[in-house]
Amino acid sequence: MASVLITGASRGLGLALTRELASRPASAVSKIFAAIRGDAPAALNELVQKSPDRVFVVKLDVTDQNSIKKAAVEVETKLGGKGLDVLINNAGVCQYAFNGVKSMDNLEESFAINVMGVHWTTREFLPLLQKGTLKKVANMSTTMGSITLARAASALPAPAYKISKAAMNALTVQYALEYEKEGFSFIALCPGWLKTDLGGGDMADLTAEEGAKASLDIIFKEGQEYNGQMPKVFVKGWEVPKEGKWNVYDGTNAPW
Amino acid sequence: MASVLITGASRGLGLALTRELASRPASAVSKIFAAIRGDAPAALNELVQKSPDRVFVVKLDVTDQNSIKKAAVEVETKLGGKGLDVLINNAGVCQYAFNGVKSMDNLEESFAINVMGVHWTTREFLPLLQKGTLKKVANMSTTMGSITLARAASALPAPAYKISKAAMNALTVQYALEYEKEGFSFIALCPGWLKTDLGGGDMADLTAEEGAKASLDIIFKEGQEYNGQMPKVFVKGWEVPKEGKWNVYDGTNAPW
Ligand SMILES: NC(=O)c1ccc[n+]([C@@H]2O[C@H](COP(=O)([O-])OP(=O)(O)OC[C@H]3O[C@@H](n4cnc5c(N)ncnc54)[C@H](OP(=O)(O)O)[C@@H]3O)[C@@H](O)[C@H]2O)c1
Ligand SMILES: NC(=O)c1ccc[n+]([C@@H]2O[C@H](COP(=O)([O-])OP(=O)(O)OC[C@H]3O[C@@H](n4cnc5c(N)ncnc54)[C@H](OP(=O)(O)O)[C@@H]3O)[C@@H](O)[C@H]2O)c1
Repeated sequence: MASVLITGASRGLGLALTRELASRPASAVSKIFAAIRGDAPAALNELVQKSPDRVFVVKLDVTDQNSIKKAAVEVETKLGGKGLDVLINNAGVCQYAFNGVKSMDNLEESFAINVMGVHWTTREFLPLLQKGTLKKVANMSTTMGSITLARAASALPAPAYKISKAAMNALTVQYALEYEKEGFSFIALCPGWLKTDLGGGDMADLTAEEGAKASLDIIFKEGQEYNGQMPKVFVKGWEVPKEGKWNVYDGTNAPW
Repeated sequence: MASVLITGASRGLGLALTRELASRPASAVSKIFAAIRGDAPAALNELVQKSPDRVFVVKLDVTDQNSIKKAAVEVETKLGGKGLDVLINNAGVCQYAFNGVKSMDNLEESFAINVMGVHWTTREFLPLLQKGTLKKVANMSTTMGSITLARAASALPAPAYKISKAAMNALTVQYALEYEKEGFSFIALCPGWLKTDLGGGDMADLTAEEGAKASLDIIFKEGQEYNGQMPKVFVKGWEVPKEGKWNVYDGTNAPW
């Protein structure tokens, strides 16, 4: 009977997470808060129409603390005294610098969305999460944010993405260390290279649906083994590199 | 015959680096640019008076791109056609959050000084560094910014410091990977826990002078072995933990 809030639920992985959760029985997933900054796309409206008592669209721009506060009040009301079980900080951007790192002029914006957005959203929903039973916070991360693996990622000309996700990982661990004694898991979760706008479409390895399901496997795993870690998803058939591919999705932790 | 620019040279490690470099013969260190954002303290003026043809005070606020541009023009003029050999991105702040990570309201400011400041200063001085012979850029880092070592650092209530230095480390590696083929070394250099304002004074392990000398040992080491790494300084007598202390300064690389 978990309640879940997902930011950036308008498209890509966030929408796929919302759809996957909505497809599960109410006995497993009681309330789904699809947080979006703009107008609800048709796909999301359909999900609401199908399950009006379980799927709720909430306005939330992660760069606007007021918008987050308002969203938290609205969610609190909808939860009717209960806590929020899972927060998925999924909203994010991948910004490029095509003329090398010295041409990078979007790092501040990447910090605002990918790091400050996660911090502000997390702390605003923390009281509700503390009342929840599962106490899981998944911050959608990427091996592109691994400093250790930076050389392998050097072909992607997105320094602001890499640097801001490394910072988000550090933020995740700060929360993880502080709240582990309360039973929380703060997870820097790598969903795999996904066929979304951000993932660049068809070249990517997994569909948004595959990434969503595999991410939820990690999030709903009992216990705190992923707290303060950066797990990659586990996807059957991807435990070893596929022909012509280089990524593996074997459920192991990526290095910082 | 190295030329060196140090940001944050008004006090602490930056001043100690300036003093140490000024004490070396002109045959080893030809020009020292002590970059400060405010007025020159007496200690710095003294160094200029002693070596007016070698020590130069330059105005530079790392959060102000215009100020950095002006400083770069001034330094270029003073170098009279030569390149800059070493850039030490030393300016930095350690900001606290005493009521836990959720109370952190200074992360944006820490990003501005500790990350954007390093990025903007580096790219502005890059053309001069490319003309230089040593091609060393030291970004003053700290094991507090190691995500791997975060648990050991959890007693220090300075999440914005830790997160911003982790981001600075990621930035350092982006530059390191891009410019290694030109012979550059971008180093995330850990100077040790120093008795400065930031270090909290006498509780710390090393004097600013010890930290400065040991940092210069790494910076002036020939070759590129530290490029894209986070070396801790080597200080004789500190290779194993001293009684009642927990840090070691053995010259090894810290993990990300
Ligand atoms: N795709 C991959 O291969 C991949 C791999 C690893 C990690 N990830 C991570 O997974 C997450 C989702 O990625 P994706 O591929 O689904 O990206 P996407 O298709 O580009 O979707 C990004 C989502 O973030 C939202 N968003 C952006 N800025 C926002 C803001 N200020 N406030 C609220 N929402 C905002 C977007 O909303 P709008 O529709 O309003 O723009 C959209 O819903 C990201 O954090 C990404 O870093 C993705
Ligand atoms: N002390 C330690 O134990 C330790 C350990 C590891 C790493 N480090 C790193 O070493 C560096 C120096 O530390 P410290 O101990 O010498 O610190 P400090 O004594 O507090 O001095 C900080 C310096 O940074 C300058 N600064 C701050 N904001 C600036 C800005 N916007 N523009 C230009 N300069 C600015 C300050 O100038 P004003 O005088 O104008 O304020 C001052 O010169 C920092 O990057 C720090 O993270 C220190």
